[in-house]
Amino acid sequence: MQFIRSTLVQLAIVFVSVITLQAQDPLPSWNDTAPKKAIVAFVDKVTKEGSADFVPPNERIATFDNDGTLWCEKPLPVQLFFTLDRVKALAPQHPEWKTQEPFASLLKDDLKGALAGGEHAILEMMAATHSGMTITEFEKIVADWIATAQHPKFKRPYTECVYQPMLELVAYLRANGFKTFIVSGGGIEFMRPWTEKVYGIPPEQVVGSSGKTKFEMRDGIPVLMKLSAVDFIDDKDGKPVGINEHIGRRPVMAFGNSDGDLQMLQWTAASSGSRYCLYVHHDDAEREYAYDRKDALAKLDKGWDEAVAKGWTVVSMKNDWKTIFPTERK
Amino acid sequence: MQFIRSTLVQLAIVFVSVITLQAQDPLPSWNDTAPKKAIVAFVDKVTKEGSADFVPPNERIATFDNDGTLWCEKPLPVQLFFTLDRVKALAPQHPEWKTQEPFASLLKDDLKGALAGGEHAILEMMAATHSGMTITEFEKIVADWIATAQHPKFKRPYTECVYQPMLELVAYLRANGFKTFIVSGGGIEFMRPWTEKVYGIPPEQVVGSSGKTKFEMRDGIPVLMKLSAVDFIDDKDGKPVGINEHIGRRPVMAFGNSDGDLQMLQWTAASSGSRYCLYVHHDDAEREYAYDRKDALAKLDKGWDEAVAKGWTVVSMKNDWKTIFPTERK
Repeated sequence: MQFIRSTLVQLAIVFVSVITLQAQDPLPSWNDTAPKKAIVAFVDKVTKEGSADFVPPNERIATFDNDGTLWCEKPLPVQLFFTLDRVKALAPQHPEWKTQEPFASLLKDDLKGALAGGEHAILEMMAATHSGMTITEFEKIVADWIATAQHPKFKRPYTECVYQPMLELVAYLRANGFKTFIVSGGGIEFMRPWTEKVYGIPPEQVVGSSGKTKFEMRDGIPVLMKLSAVDFIDDKDGKPVGINEHIGRRPVMAFGNSDGDLQMLQWTAASSGSRYCLYVHHDDAEREYAYDRKDALAKLDKGWDEAVAKGWTVVSMKNDWKTIFPTERK
Repeated sequence: MQFIRSTLVQLAIVFVSVITLQAQDPLPSWNDTAPKKAIVAFVDKVTKEGSADFVPPNERIATFDNDGTLWCEKPLPVQLFFTLDRVKALAPQHPEWKTQEPFASLLKDDLKGALAGGEHAILEMMAATHSGMTITEFEKIVADWIATAQHPKFKRPYTECVYQPMLELVAYLRANGFKTFIVSGGGIEFMRPWTEKVYGIPPEQVVGSSGKTKFEMRDGIPVLMKLSAVDFIDDKDGKPVGINEHIGRRPVMAFGNSDGDLQMLQWTAASSGSRYCLYVHHDDAEREYAYDRKDALAKLDKGWDEAVAKGWTVVSMKNDWKTIFPTERK
């Protein structure tokens, strides 16, 4: 009887929540412009049973790029700030870094010099700071860092430099039966410690770049050691590969902000059935940053042309979003 | 009003289903012996809110080996039968196979000769038959084969040579909020076309061995081509690596049947909090097959010793299971 009573109470709560959800605008931070209308129209048609466009719940996969799509990637990708901080923290154990680039420049606070070596220098710093410990130790390092580090311009934690309209979109899709995945060029183990709390996306729905790991026994305890070798780069051509490896079905909706996401959107759009692709365009220098065709790290160029040609949604952060970041701190 | 009425009807259905579920034995094909009692006691304690052993729903991960744990792996692993059939089907396009081992022996129906080269011969045949097409084409080849191929001893489709008690266990765990994953040495793309229908486990919850794939444009259409190079072997030491890469958290429960699963069980057991490990022991030559310490492909030896030492459950198929295979065909 106790069981029946508590079940009835739970059902009543579900019932009221469902009613409330229907009544509220699920995307309140979106202006009532074309992108919002297109998103809602698409979700309505693929979730309407009996409709020719209906997609069964188990096939409702939505994939989101992270850097620049769900959170701010300027003036540098967050993982790069993390890497730079880790180099400084580990420097006492590496006296050789005093004379070895890119470490030497960085330790003299010459960020430009440290990054002069381009992608190679970045990968070298990442390999040096993202390996040599267990995955559990690394998870704690990330969690501690992300809890305290601040964005240089917005003076708030990086996890509060996420886009409020995108948080609403992720929640809206989940409420409509979508399984939401991150598919990011960023490190899978750099994201997993906080994506569930910040986006409601659990670790098993995070796809990203990764280094190799090795199972071994340490004092009789099994551990997974992080090695310095790269295992997989989940960017550009790698995104459809990562989606196939981790998810095993094609997305129904895909969201990105740069040419690094283009193959993911192509892979999504070319599938049979109803498909939806969206690019976030960073055109709001006042409230965030403005960059597109000529950006060095996150160019939106070919992707923009293809979006226009194929009728994908291009969101103007300036015109289509009422707010950029969450106003209330979590 | 229509919405409210249909919601109420749905809630009523949920309510009745919940009541029914409570009343029925969730594991009717299990004898009332120690393994069933241990499983139910464990699930009860980790799902009881307020209990010291409570595990929140989002952390309830259960991982299952496939070959020998969820379905029959004798007289040969099913994927090997598939591979042999594919070699025969593709032989007309490969005249060189007539004189090239292991293909030559196989094409003369000398299975023993074809497998004499051991793991190397098997990998060579797999590489030759599992590559050179898109993932979509491969998926169709698997789906067509699995729909018609028959087990040589049981004379029924392989998908009906799954273990009824394990089907009940997978469903029981899901009903208790667990997310169920396959973590198999078998090919990820060999399993995904049928695991959702047969086990209720969707593609995104299947972890397995994989070959490399490559994104490319074919006549303007994006495709993923299957290459012959091995990408990842999800067996032994590889299982914890695969679990970390795909799931990103440790299992709460893990199920296997051979030494190839030992590291997965060690990785599960060594985590903090309540953990449960189980080995299926094939000791039923009459209803299935009997093999353990001395089996060539699926030895249960070190794992058995460790299970006894650590108090993991060891299921005797002969004594603990009322039935082996589903009696009703799907």
